[in-house]
This record gives sequence, structure tokens and C-alpha cells, in this order.
Amino acid sequence: MSPLDNALLAIERACGSGSVIRDESLREGYAGDESETTPCIPEAVVRASSTEEVSQVMRAAFEHGVPVTPRGGGTGRVGGAVPVRGGIVLTFERMASIKHIDRNELTTRVQPGVITGELKRTVEEDLLYYPPDPNSRDSCAIGGNLATNAGGPRAFKYGVTREYVLGMEVVLADGTVLQLGHETKKGVTGYDLTALVVGSEGTLGIVTEATLRLIPKPEATVTLLACFSGLDEVAPAVQTLLSQGHVPSCIELLDSEAIRIVRPEAGLTIPDETKAILLVELDGEAGRLDGDLEVCGNALTDLGALEVLVAQTSGERDRLWASRRELSHSLRRQAKNKLSEDVVVPRTKMADLLRTCAELSDENELVIPTYGHAGDGNLHVNFLWDDPDQKRKVDDAVKRLFERVIELRGTLSGEHGIGVLKAPYLPMEQSLALIDLQQRIKDVFDPKHILNPGKIFPADAKRFHGVC
Amino acid sequence: MSPLDNALLAIERACGSGSVIRDESLREGYAGDESETTPCIPEAVVRASSTEEVSQVMRAAFEHGVPVTPRGGGTGRVGGAVPVRGGIVLTFERMASIKHIDRNELTTRVQPGVITGELKRTVEEDLLYYPPDPNSRDSCAIGGNLATNAGGPRAFKYGVTREYVLGMEVVLADGTVLQLGHETKKGVTGYDLTALVVGSEGTLGIVTEATLRLIPKPEATVTLLACFSGLDEVAPAVQTLLSQGHVPSCIELLDSEAIRIVRPEAGLTIPDETKAILLVELDGEAGRLDGDLEVCGNALTDLGALEVLVAQTSGERDRLWASRRELSHSLRRQAKNKLSEDVVVPRTKMADLLRTCAELSDENELVIPTYGHAGDGNLHVNFLWDDPDQKRKVDDAVKRLFERVIELRGTLSGEHGIGVLKAPYLPMEQSLALIDLQQRIKDVFDPKHILNPGKIFPADAKRFHGVC
Repeated sequence: MSPLDNALLAIERACGSGSVIRDESLREGYAGDESETTPCIPEAVVRASSTEEVSQVMRAAFEHGVPVTPRGGGTGRVGGAVPVRGGIVLTFERMASIKHIDRNELTTRVQPGVITGELKRTVEEDLLYYPPDPNSRDSCAIGGNLATNAGGPRAFKYGVTREYVLGMEVVLADGTVLQLGHETKKGVTGYDLTALVVGSEGTLGIVTEATLRLIPKPEATVTLLACFSGLDEVAPAVQTLLSQGHVPSCIELLDSEAIRIVRPEAGLTIPDETKAILLVELDGEAGRLDGDLEVCGNALTDLGALEVLVAQTSGERDRLWASRRELSHSLRRQAKNKLSEDVVVPRTKMADLLRTCAELSDENELVIPTYGHAGDGNLHVNFLWDDPDQKRKVDDAVKRLFERVIELRGTLSGEHGIGVLKAPYLPMEQSLALIDLQQRIKDVFDPKHILNPGKIFPADAKRFHGVC
Repeated sequence: MSPLDNALLAIERACGSGSVIRDESLREGYAGDESETTPCIPEAVVRASSTEEVSQVMRAAFEHGVPVTPRGGGTGRVGGAVPVRGGIVLTFERMASIKHIDRNELTTRVQPGVITGELKRTVEEDLLYYPPDPNSRDSCAIGGNLATNAGGPRAFKYGVTREYVLGMEVVLADGTVLQLGHETKKGVTGYDLTALVVGSEGTLGIVTEATLRLIPKPEATVTLLACFSGLDEVAPAVQTLLSQGHVPSCIELLDSEAIRIVRPEAGLTIPDETKAILLVELDGEAGRLDGDLEVCGNALTDLGALEVLVAQTSGERDRLWASRRELSHSLRRQAKNKLSEDVVVPRTKMADLLRTCAELSDENELVIPTYGHAGDGNLHVNFLWDDPDQKRKVDDAVKRLFERVIELRGTLSGEHGIGVLKAPYLPMEQSLALIDLQQRIKDVFDPKHILNPGKIFPADAKRFHGVC
């Protein structure tokens, strides 16, 4: 028997035969994610039902040296959940409970398979709020959010996933179960391994439960849509708005290509000459929000907006947001291929970044719709192409984009992580000494390199490129 | 020549002879901190002037296997800066510049020797705000704040140090200089080593520069002081206040012993029957704060406060806070010995924790003034004693306190860290597997164990107990 067969036999014995899927037609569904990463069909899919089962899976995988790729909702943008070295994909559909909501402590305990949007809706019924809101919230899972340290539009006001994780239960590569962090808001005993595991893309350990911090649900929310006649006006407008002391819950930017694509679906009546949109949301106390809305709307007009629309009803707001949320999928329908980058630059450099995107589009005759979280300087730069021959042009343009981002003292990824697709570019941002240090930390957690192998680190990525 | 002499020779060559202090009368000043840890006079004190010099110091120390204990303001409460294995104390008086404040990006770049209070005052001149406010802010340094992940009263609303660190430059044990993290608010490239180094008590690397996030300075601040006739009423009052949606910038608790000590110095006119005080601060927009103050004051009265005083002027507020800030030193003057614990429990368990403190006081005939950050369930439990024979009683009481804290699902330290004093207790909270994992991470960063050795880990603590 092969090492894999031995491992699966041990897993079936521990978790029951129904937990292991070997049927190829079913395994195919676990081969890819929502990125251009080449899908790889895993040799088996294991559905764990408990921490103890995850531990048994890892013990067997460790003993027999079988790769294990943990998978949340499969909505990743860099191939993080793609099993590039085969082996087992470990899924959490059976570990999808919100185990506890504590209204007094403002915490919740959740399993990794919980869909983020479901968690958000559930706690909101109790007038609580879980702020992280990745675009894929209705299909991504908390486990994946922890693995990537997910953000979203409201990270501008409320911060990213890490800031809401108090503690977690993790299973290490050898099956050891550890409790990391605290149940309290503060705690400084030992190293902050919770923060280390968050964002580690499933390469250090598997989160089997997390204690998340909640906040009181904002009483009310209002949304403004400001239309601008030029992209150049937008970055200074954002800067001025914020320096005036406004604290929106988010400030989303859409460039003209993004507007062109989203416009028919959104049914928006906006001025024809609109070349950029800022979607600004304010939340807080109901009694104060009308005043804030007026002040903010006037400020946007003063900053040169052609028109400022206010979503009057929750229906209008939902429609506005639905089109923004669907933007990524709408873009995908525009061309056969789509590469979505999520670079970040210091906010004052956003105008430079937008100019770079325009130049790359002109020079390479590529369609590069850009949108994203303007308040954080975190933009989604999308490359769309049909003709496979254009791929080289796209690769060149991506590299130039990254070079410019680094020049502007930014970072290659604000939300998606590194995964497979960005691994070759990591040395553009990080020194080899820093990458080496991270790999040595990886070795401590996962000496046999069985946990989501082939991710993050360029050496690995290179070594295993083209395996599938 | 001894390894130390060799190392110092190399250091003098690299940093200049004035950088190395060998005079014993001067070295004595670097032997202890503000805790009961037995002071240890280092064999040398090195004052570095630049990152390059820190790197040279570590290269020499690494080559010759000499312990290096980095030291900030020396205000620690657990012996973190005490050179328990001798060697070199590395100080940062010469690296104390605020190198840059970016009003648009809301960031600042600082060297580790900057005094926290000075940073706070400087950025406030620009209407910016650096929220972390450890009690010792006028003498502690940012480097020490990073090492302990310092908190303070306003952590309740604004979070702890880690939440304000975007990136940092660190020197590893072997002298390697690394840039960690980002200059942008978001960034998920690779592992979050910034968060790992923050709170690592100088055992993983030496921070030589940090990029910190700032926020706009709150327009105005108001302070309320609510007097209660019993300690039992306070925990429920805090809980109810917060569940009503109030978001104070802090909620500080003082028990009757703390009040007795602080009262003469504060010149407060409060009801004689006061057994507990809540100091509640609100901040925000000036125009809205009066309304908030009234609502919050009425809520405190409804929750059973004997009297609610409002600090009408900034002078009154300063006096109120000065006495709160001096409390720790006032306590120290009450007895020959003082041990200050900083346990945290879930906020809903604070009443249980306060009862435990009262029981420990009664049963052991010990004076145990308790105060702290009630909004976070983070209390400073102080043990005061004169007679050395009482030490055993204190040790027993501390152990029972910690047992109770763990039962209540709390943590042994919310702000101070582990250092020397709490190292023997770490296994009460963390499994041996977790401690072992942390030690293996330590090995990656510092294979020769020269960086602040003898801290955090109980095995080390035991092995080197009584060296001084």
C-alpha cells in the first residue's frame, strides 16, 4: 500500500468511512479556487467532524508524509486552497457551528466551516456585529478568513480579521491540539501565536475553533454615492475627506471601467460623464447620522463631485452594494481570463498607483478595471484578457505594477495573501533573510512540510511549479 | 580575554569607546526594574546610537556567546529588563528620536528610546493621537511598550500597543537587520512577524525602529467619578453600562483600599461611605460630549452610585488622573514590599475575581488594594507587606489568585508580561506543548539564547533561579 492508502486507512478507521471521499467526480469540486491557479484534483477529500478527527487526520498524514490542504469556502484569489502537491484536501462542512454567542462578553465561539455571512447575520439578530466583510462573505468560511486575515470594505473603520480573534484551537502538523490566545480582550502571556497563525494561509496549523470578538451593532447605516468626472480627483478627495475628521465605515472606489461593467446591473442613474465613483458609508447612532450624512455629502460636493446620491432606503442601499459585491463576478464574465491583484499603497500615494494602472492599460492595450478600498489605499487591480497570447503582456504588466507598488512603499497583498500565484513575487517585497526566517518558523510548526505545501514561499513555489 | 571582554572590545571598536559603560557605580542603575525581581548588575552597559550599532553589538555578542538584555525605561513589573544572566544591558537613550510624523497617512516612525508620554504629547500638538497609555507613560519607552505589548486605561476603547504597530525594523540575535510588517494599514504578505515580536519581551529580536499608526485626536474629553457604597455593585454596574451601548474611552475601578491610599493625595471630596470608585472617561466630538456625559452620569446614578462627580475643568481632570497614575507609587510607599499582579478575567467574571481578592485578604490578613481597567476585566491586584515572614503567605495568596483566574477562564497577565516573576506560573495557563512550541520558535530567532535569556519560559526561569 502507498503512504496515502495507509494514511486514508487510518483516517477511515478514526473518522468513519463516510468521511473519506475518493470518487473522482466528487474530488474534482475541490481542485481549484476562484483564481487563475491551475486546478489540481486531490487524491482524497476528508470531511472532518470534530477537533479530535482533525487531529487523527493530521496524525495519520504526519506518520505517512501525506500533504494536507485545508479548505474553507474555496473562494481564495491566489490558489491557497489548491492542493498543488496532491494528497488530502481537508474540509469543514461538518464543522460549521456557531457554538456560542456571549452577549455580555461580546464574544462568539465558532467552528472553521461557518460561512462568514451567516455568522454576521446571526450575531446581528442579537444586535451584535462581526465587522470583517470580505466580498465573498456569503460563500467564504471563517476558517479561510482566519487563514488569509480577511479584510473587506469595512476594514477601513473596523480593522481586519486578526483584530477580532481573541483565541483559537489549532491542530499542528503532527496532530497536537493547542489552545492559543485568550478568551479575554487583553492577554500577554507568552508569544502571540494567535496573531502568527492568523494570515498564515493554513501552512502552520489548522484552526478547529476560534473565539472572536464582537462589537455592538451600529444603530444605523447610510450610504452615499459620489460621482466624479475624473479619476485624478478621487484620491485627493479621499485624503481631504479623512483629514477633515470624517470616519466613514468604508470608502470604496470604482474606476470608469468598473463603472461601465457594473452600471447596467446596478440600474444607477448617474451623470454620463462619471469617470469615478466613491461609495461612502457612514454608521453609528441613528439620531446623529442624518447630520453626519449632510456634512459628508456637502464635503464631497465641495471636493468636486458631479453629483452625490444618497441611498434613501435599505432596499436602495442593498442594490448599490449588491452590484459592488457582484463586481468581481461581473468582471469575470467580461473575459475568458481574469487576474485580480490586491495591492496596497500608502493612502497619499493612491493617485500615483491609479496613474500607473492607467499607463499599464494604455501601453499594453489591456483592460484593467480597478476598484477597492480607497480609505486603506488597498485597490483591486483586475487584468482581463481573452487571447492566451496576451498572457505574457499581463505578466509583464503585473510585474511592473508590483515594482511600482514597492517603489511607493506599499505591499503586494492587502487581503488575498500569497498562496501560489504571488509566491514568485514575494522577494520583490521581502528580503531573503526575512523569507528564510519565516521558512524556519514553518519548519518548527511543520517539519515534514505536509501542511498546505507549495504556498507562500518562492523556493517551494518554484520547486513545485507545474506539478499539476 | 574572556568572551565578554572580546565582545566588548569588538563593540567599542564598532560603536566608539563612549558607548560602553563598565564603571560599577553607573552599571548599578541598570540592575533592576520597578518590580520585586532581585536586581542583577550587568557586566557592561552599551548605549547604541543607531541600528547599525545595535547590529554590531549583536554580532559581537553572538560570536562570543554573551547575553544581551535590552532595556527601555526600566519601568517593567516582572523583571523583563533585569539582566539575570549578567552580560550586557543594551540601552536606547541615544536612539530616542521621533523620526517622522505623517499627518496625512496618520503614521509616525520612532526609535525605541522615545518616551511614550513624549510621543503622545508631540503628536497631540498636531491634533493626532497615539492611544496606548501605560501608567508609566512619562518614564517608559516605546521599545519597552513594544516588548510588553503595553496597554493602559484607554486600551478599553482603543486597544493595546500591537494594534498600533504597522511595521518595525528589528535586529536579530546574530545581528541580521530585518524590516517586518508594512507602512500601510493593511498587508498580508507572509507571516505576521510584527505581531509575533510585539509582546515577546525582547527575547526574539531588538526593535530599532517602529512605524506606528496614529488616529485623529479626540476633540474633547470629559471625566466622571462615580462613588459606590460596595464593591459588589461595581462589576454589575460596568456590565450594565456597557450593555446599554456606552463606549467610554476608559472605565477604571478603585477598591476601598486603593481609595484610602489615594484619597489624601487627590484631595477628593467624596462620600465617607464610598467603598469603590469608577472613573469613567468619555471622548469624542465636543458638541456631542455634553449630551453623552449627562446620559452616562444618569446611568451611573441609576446603577446605584452614591454620587457622580464631573471633572469640570482640565485642571480637575488632571488632578483626578494624576492621583490615579500615582497610585502604583503611592502603594509602594505603604509598605516595604509590593507585588503587583495584572490578571484579566472575562468581564462578567470580575465580581468573582473581586470576591476572591477580598477572601485572600481576610484569610491571610494581607492588605490587597485592587484597581485597574474594569472595562477589560484587567485588574491590578497589589500585595503589600513589611515583614519578610509574610512573603510565604503572599506567595500562597498569589498562587490561589492565579488558580482562580484560570478557573474563571482568564489570563495571568494583561499588560506586564511574564518576565522573571511570572515564569514559574506560566504552566498554570499554558500546556507544556504550547510552551515547548514557543521555545522552539525562540530557538529559531535566537539559537544561542543570548537575547534577554532567563525570561518567559519556566524551564529557563528554574534553571537560572538564584543566579544573582
